Amino acid sequence: MEIEQDDVAEQTTGNETLKALEFLGQGTSAAQRIFAMIGHSRFFSDFTRADIERLAGSMLIYRAAPGQTIIREGDVDDYMLLIIEGQVEIVKRDRLGAKQPMTLVGPGATLGEMSMIDGEPRFATCTALDPTTFAALSRDGMVRIILEEPSLGAKILIKLVTLLSARLRQTSHNLLHWMEP
Amino acid sequence: MEIEQDDVAEQTTGNETLKALEFLGQGTSAAQRIFAMIGHSRFFSDFTRADIERLAGSMLIYRAAPGQTIIREGDVDDYMLLIIEGQVEIVKRDRLGAKQPMTLVGPGATLGEMSMIDGEPRFATCTALDPTTFAALSRDGMVRIILEEPSLGAKILIKLVTLLSARLRQTSHNLLHWMEP
Repeated sequence: MEIEQDDVAEQTTGNETLKALEFLGQGTSAAQRIFAMIGHSRFFSDFTRADIERLAGSMLIYRAAPGQTIIREGDVDDYMLLIIEGQVEIVKRDRLGAKQPMTLVGPGATLGEMSMIDGEPRFATCTALDPTTFAALSRDGMVRIILEEPSLGAKILIKLVTLLSARLRQTSHNLLHWMEP
Repeated sequence: MEIEQDDVAEQTTGNETLKALEFLGQGTSAAQRIFAMIGHSRFFSDFTRADIERLAGSMLIYRAAPGQTIIREGDVDDYMLLIIEGQVEIVKRDRLGAKQPMTLVGPGATLGEMSMIDGEPRFATCTALDPTTFAALSRDGMVRIILEEPSLGAKILIKLVTLLSARLRQTSHNLLHWMEP
């Protein structure tokens, strides 16, 4: 099991943070759970069962214990996460190194889309508060979907643009609020 | 010419703000200029000449005089813009109605991607400072590209995700800076 985990993780992300977590297998095994979760997930609201089975087949499932880090600020890696179960805290260090809690997210939320797409270092650290199960999609996985199933690829990309757009609107609103005299 | 402008604008965006501007024709006529501009545009850095010809064929070209508005805060419309020539100021009203200048952009910059994708009202107002030529792509135009040329569609969507991601990182950094004690 240990060897298998390392093999798959290496092929897909080669990532130290993920390797420290419990590996639960290919996402195919979680397709049913992901499908059952659709009602809670803005990400999947217009995906068909076939879309989700295909996408799940490109994902790997992990479980983190409370306190374990699933994304580390400053790391250069390339996966995004879909939280299936549990709760995750997002924290960023300010210029003085103090931790600034940003938000809490739960099942249906996605994390880490920015680095999957742009390859820039992680913006913040994500830590499990409860036992947390999530599905990881690497950039290679995403590229394969775009090449092999362009219409599903476009659906996922449109979803990502919509999510980032909503976050940018919210963050810009907050920024203007702080900047007002 | 007047009738033709209204016809095309109606078919593609039906938009009052664009109708008030000088209409210069289908983007095909501007493909060469867009191609010549690639060096300045982050948006087009990995597009081939064929990609740009196809994309330009789905765009409409307009010219705005100094002081004319090209996107109006609060409007619900669905086009994004690529600035070909000129300079544009982005201004948002704060809660008291006062205008907050946000930034200036020039040739190669894109504007309005968020509303093209998510259909939410315009976040800010964009006004020409100099005589400004730009190409507009409506949501319908984008959808047609995705359906007819999925690989080009994916390229454009990846570009949009990358742009939004960069802006979100920058805006979040600014927000954290303001929030620090």
